[in-house]
Amino acid sequence: MMIEHPGFVLWMTGLSGAGKTTLALALEKELRARGVRLERLDGDTVREGLTRDLGFSKEDRDKNIERVSFVAKLLSRNHVAVIASFISPYAAMREFVRKETTNFLEVYVDAPLEECERRDVKGWYAKARAGQVKNFTGIDDPYEAPENAEIHIRTDLYSIDECVAQILESLEERQFIPAVTA
Amino acid sequence: MMIEHPGFVLWMTGLSGAGKTTLALALEKELRARGVRLERLDGDTVREGLTRDLGFSKEDRDKNIERVSFVAKLLSRNHVAVIASFISPYAAMREFVRKETTNFLEVYVDAPLEECERRDVKGWYAKARAGQVKNFTGIDDPYEAPENAEIHIRTDLYSIDECVAQILESLEERQFIPAVTA
Repeated sequence: MMIEHPGFVLWMTGLSGAGKTTLALALEKELRARGVRLERLDGDTVREGLTRDLGFSKEDRDKNIERVSFVAKLLSRNHVAVIASFISPYAAMREFVRKETTNFLEVYVDAPLEECERRDVKGWYAKARAGQVKNFTGIDDPYEAPENAEIHIRTDLYSIDECVAQILESLEERQFIPAVTA
Repeated sequence: MMIEHPGFVLWMTGLSGAGKTTLALALEKELRARGVRLERLDGDTVREGLTRDLGFSKEDRDKNIERVSFVAKLLSRNHVAVIASFISPYAAMREFVRKETTNFLEVYVDAPLEECERRDVKGWYAKARAGQVKNFTGIDDPYEAPENAEIHIRTDLYSIDECVAQILESLEERQFIPAVTA
């Protein structure tokens, strides 16, 4: 049974290793269980169909977000929720997506660089420090932290379940999803 | 008032000047009036957000269809109808979209080349004949006509209204949209 909702975009931005994908997967599961029609977009889900010609230069990162934004625009205005997790380091591009889409919520998935580097789930930070990977956000490429994110999540201070609960509560408050009553 | 429908893709293929855009616009109007949630995709609506790096080589044409297909996949599986009008001259790419999307209907918008060239709404055929435009489908680039299109429309034999009625009837027969009772 699907519910009717207005369409919205949860735009998860943050450093590599901050927990964007983990949170996105947990949120997807919870929202689907509640009957929310949704698509989860991240580097892996869009690469084959949309962005496989792109690398990590600023120009290519911007093109990447631009194409994802187009998809999120069409989905969100047709009442499909979007959970998008992209480092999306540039504030200007995040503002671009905000303007393009319906009910855009910036979710700052925040953990200190040292913590992300300590986790180093995929070994990218070690490679970036060794100079084997270039243009790595937080090491030799900038990350412009959100200044007014609708939702600010500290994954170094709260558990995944707590972070998911914070985001769901925020969606309920905005009446983007119905509140669950016990 | 929006109706619930299963999501489908009307893929309008045909030569430049065959009437794809004219038909798509008329269909969009009629389907919206019936409460069908939909997006209309064509070269103009996708260029800025999705395909402005692409030209008219075979490789670029294929990439163009690939990206549009990704968007159509996400929309159609979330119960949003898609009206896509692209020359899409290569049968293999149309089959690719068929496999990727939900309830794909190939609509062959058919008019003889001579008729399309006579119409020459945008003056492209004249330029292609003069060699000022290269890789123009039907002149110096192939068009692989559909062999088993779900819907075959002859815009040289029927009026726009008649063609639209044929397509709507086909959607009703498949129960993709509710039949209108007089």
